[in-house]
Amino acid sequence: MMTITPNLDAISIILVRTRFPENIGSVARVMKNMGLSRMVLVSGCSPFHSMAYKLASGAEDILERAEEVPTLREAVSEMEFVAGMTSRAGRDRAPFLSPSELMEELIPLTGKFSTGLVFGSEKEGLTNEELGLCHRYVRIPSAPAFPSLNLAQAVAILCYELGRSSCPEVEYPAPLARAEQIEQMFEHMERTLVEIDFLESKNPERIMRALRRLFGRSKLEEREIQILQGIWSKMDWQMRKKGEDIR
Amino acid sequence: MMTITPNLDAISIILVRTRFPENIGSVARVMKNMGLSRMVLVSGCSPFHSMAYKLASGAEDILERAEEVPTLREAVSEMEFVAGMTSRAGRDRAPFLSPSELMEELIPLTGKFSTGLVFGSEKEGLTNEELGLCHRYVRIPSAPAFPSLNLAQAVAILCYELGRSSCPEVEYPAPLARAEQIEQMFEHMERTLVEIDFLESKNPERIMRALRRLFGRSKLEEREIQILQGIWSKMDWQMRKKGEDIR
Repeated sequence: MMTITPNLDAISIILVRTRFPENIGSVARVMKNMGLSRMVLVSGCSPFHSMAYKLASGAEDILERAEEVPTLREAVSEMEFVAGMTSRAGRDRAPFLSPSELMEELIPLTGKFSTGLVFGSEKEGLTNEELGLCHRYVRIPSAPAFPSLNLAQAVAILCYELGRSSCPEVEYPAPLARAEQIEQMFEHMERTLVEIDFLESKNPERIMRALRRLFGRSKLEEREIQILQGIWSKMDWQMRKKGEDIR
Repeated sequence: MMTITPNLDAISIILVRTRFPENIGSVARVMKNMGLSRMVLVSGCSPFHSMAYKLASGAEDILERAEEVPTLREAVSEMEFVAGMTSRAGRDRAPFLSPSELMEELIPLTGKFSTGLVFGSEKEGLTNEELGLCHRYVRIPSAPAFPSLNLAQAVAILCYELGRSSCPEVEYPAPLARAEQIEQMFEHMERTLVEIDFLESKNPERIMRALRRLFGRSKLEEREIQILQGIWSKMDWQMRKKGEDIR
């Protein structure tokens, strides 16, 4: 069996609402240590803060090329696979992958697809909404009584695991859907499921999160997105027709 | 085959000549994240510095219980297995283990023996003399052009690898020698090898480092130390006898 190593240029480190510029600098440094170069910052502090520069100690180029965007949705819109880090447990968040389990899924994708590892803010981590944009949830094993790792150390561990891992080659014959296509499908799905009274219009989130998790795990292909969109469109049509029949 | 997990209480994190208290605090935090508790500080800045406390953010107990000693030799004297981190290559330093290779050796020892992971100062790392006290050298794989990791991130990666790994059980039927016993043997060896003109008295270090490496790899048993000491003692006796015969 062929084994492959990751294509590091296909992996972005995405930091969401980072509060301390020191952490952005430390992340830049360890990214460069590990051969990564693509940093995306979502509505946090600036990569040009003097403390970010200080802690980067030689990785200023990563800070200067960092992309800044206002929302996670924009950050991941062109990516085919997105994994979010979380230290909090919860029914809506399971199943969790370990970093090495993540690499088994991630690395084979990096040959053809754009991918992202998402890290939340130091205090709150990622919101449920932000985790909803991720296809996989990752948790670094840690002591239950003291689980919350420093942001830059968490990135260090993921980057280290990336470099350490090599995986059996996996064939992806069909093009995978980009996050933006998947999001559009989910929005359509939600509208339709509310329309047919499967979801309560006031509180669709809980069930939608479960559906996102389900589809997130399955690495949707573009063709499958079309099929799913087709289902919702057909339901919409039936509902409209029904309305017309009654009138 | 039985697999075992590490006995974390048998593993000390030893920081040598640490310059920045922030790093000591960050190390304490990630140690606690990963279930480790024994920190030893060798002639660096104080664990009671306010910045160490700040960065520990919840792991102050590790700082308060940290042991402070003046030399690495004292720090490791009661330990049976000591691994030193290095990012610099060099003939005297090879072979290097990766963190996961280290764990295959370290973890089976933690059931019975006291062990230490040694991290040098932020700027210079460990000296050759300090590496000479280590039985194994470990290098975290990193980009050749930018290899030097932040101290606390290096500790984070080693602690993570400790938690991640489990190993086949290995039987150590005989008691291993403690570092202090091994040091005494090395000192005796050096005196004798100079005495018999195998080593130059002005520059014994290079060859001694090679010998330390060789014996360091082999996890010396107490009985073997006695055998080696016996060889040097016998040689000493022969040299004295020869001196007397000539007189």
